[in-house]
Amino acid sequence: MGESASGEPFPAAPELQTQQWFNAREPVSLAALRGRVVVIEAFQMLCPGCVSHGLPQAMRILETFDPADVAVLGLHTVFEHHAAMTPVALEAFLHEYRIGFPVGVDAPGDGKGLPKTMAAYRMQGTPTLLLIDRQGRLRAQHFGTVSDLRVGAEIMSLMIAPPRA
Amino acid sequence: MGESASGEPFPAAPELQTQQWFNAREPVSLAALRGRVVVIEAFQMLCPGCVSHGLPQAMRILETFDPADVAVLGLHTVFEHHAAMTPVALEAFLHEYRIGFPVGVDAPGDGKGLPKTMAAYRMQGTPTLLLIDRQGRLRAQHFGTVSDLRVGAEIMSLMIAPPRA
Amino acid sequence: MGESASGEPFPAAPELQTQQWFNAREPVSLAALRGRVVVIEAFQMLCPGCVSHGLPQAMRILETFDPADVAVLGLHTVFEHHAAMTPVALEAFLHEYRIGFPVGVDAPGDGKGLPKTMAAYRMQGTPTLLLIDRQGRLRAQHFGTVSDLRVGAEIMSLMIAPPRA
Amino acid sequence: MGESASGEPFPAAPELQTQQWFNAREPVSLAALRGRVVVIEAFQMLCPGCVSHGLPQAMRILETFDPADVAVLGLHTVFEHHAAMTPVALEAFLHEYRIGFPVGVDAPGDGKGLPKTMAAYRMQGTPTLLLIDRQGRLRAQHFGTVSDLRVGAEIMSLMIAPPRA
Repeated sequence: MGESASGEPFPAAPELQTQQWFNAREPVSLAALRGRVVVIEAFQMLCPGCVSHGLPQAMRILETFDPADVAVLGLHTVFEHHAAMTPVALEAFLHEYRIGFPVGVDAPGDGKGLPKTMAAYRMQGTPTLLLIDRQGRLRAQHFGTVSDLRVGAEIMSLMIAPPRA
Repeated sequence: MGESASGEPFPAAPELQTQQWFNAREPVSLAALRGRVVVIEAFQMLCPGCVSHGLPQAMRILETFDPADVAVLGLHTVFEHHAAMTPVALEAFLHEYRIGFPVGVDAPGDGKGLPKTMAAYRMQGTPTLLLIDRQGRLRAQHFGTVSDLRVGAEIMSLMIAPPRA
Repeated sequence: MGESASGEPFPAAPELQTQQWFNAREPVSLAALRGRVVVIEAFQMLCPGCVSHGLPQAMRILETFDPADVAVLGLHTVFEHHAAMTPVALEAFLHEYRIGFPVGVDAPGDGKGLPKTMAAYRMQGTPTLLLIDRQGRLRAQHFGTVSDLRVGAEIMSLMIAPPRA
Repeated sequence: MGESASGEPFPAAPELQTQQWFNAREPVSLAALRGRVVVIEAFQMLCPGCVSHGLPQAMRILETFDPADVAVLGLHTVFEHHAAMTPVALEAFLHEYRIGFPVGVDAPGDGKGLPKTMAAYRMQGTPTLLLIDRQGRLRAQHFGTVSDLRVGAEIMSLMIAPPRA
């Protein structure tokens, strides 16, 4: 098992907890993607930084890497304005913005809390970019803006790592 | 009364027909704005060109011209994805995108048709920028992208026109 | 004669003092352009703000307004790195950047001072945008970045001013 | 020794042939950089695509990667407008554009031909981005625009390759 800079092993990425998927024939799970690098763009459809930066970056990642090596997913992690960002609204958004990769709707949390996957990853807000290696371990979590150069480098470092770390 | 290039007098701009306003204490009417140049950004909150071009341009217009001379309004002209672009969703959108000028919700049309103000102006889609002179006449209607240089020039031409044309 | 906000009449724009012209069959003078609004982009070919902002804006002005109403000129006001920004270098620059409007080379000043036109206008640096009205009076002088909306409005205000002010 | 997709071993990158360096205390050679990944931005100071895309990308690469792993160099490969893009002009350009990495001036070719390093790499024009691995082998050569995502990935693939390929 690999280790982080702190000497701790890299943690297993918590499984996705979703209530619905778009652009996917069946629910997507990290377990089923084992063997591929997984890039997850956690976003809210009314978050300006997600629309102007995070989602376009995810689309560029999809175009740049071979899907056999790198899976790109979206995760709609609504933690505010719930009445505005319903699954129905999300579906229209994905259509208008031509987003073609699978997008899951994070399972609502208890009461007014964070949705479940967002809470499991202790995300600070949106956009958040998650990078998960071929063994299903969480290797990077970026809140806010991160450059294409750095993301490209990080994805490649996971792509070409030896199969057993 | 002024005349258009075709020799016809400029038409009176149809009055706004709205069901609700945001960022305004009371409903806004063109009649009440007589004497000022009026810039109206007709948009849909899930229209990518409105978000990336039209609305930022309207915000720049607001910052550039004296409100005593130029009034800037938004008009939410929903003609598709009605369930996604409700007034509740619009309110969240305006908050997240820091849009501070008054925005009216165009009155729903009959059946699945265009909303009423959009129909009255025979708009082709969104974004559409309307320029109305101090006498309440429609002087320009731009569907799609129009440059800041041209819009700046057109607004000024209406600002400094003699009071009785 | 018009008056400025301070109550002073607008000053006559000093005539251009140049040593050479590109993209022009003969030397250009403000006197010969009387009757048209004149936009002058004062720049240095190795000034980053001129290359990224000032010159592209001048090209957009050229495309937006009727040349019968608005003349666009460049003025190469070299006040540093003289050995690098020679007329020979400028010619290559204009070719590579596809700049098609007339560009004059400001006449060298005495010793290491500012070139002559730059000094006559008391420019603070580059880029500087000058706006001159149909009567040959200097009406605006912007050092640094100025928005397209504002420039478009200012040009229009000069275009439609009555012929005798 | 590594092999390319065609089954051929990767070629050794031809040594740089330069007449002068800026931002370097002494001439830079690929031989002296063995053990590090080397990124070379071949450019001309009056090439618009170099100024707007290639050089800013090289500056971002410099900021993103550890200099102990990745060396960033510029190479001024002048093949046109020789009188405009002299070393004196280049020095002013580097100063104005705040380019701080070492930049070599490619050695002039015979007659009006390509400069020597440019010819040795059979470059098609500028900008061209070269990627050289830790063993001094040419691994990528991009003429024109290449995305940050792809470049980031390619650099990382060379950074983490095993020392003996």
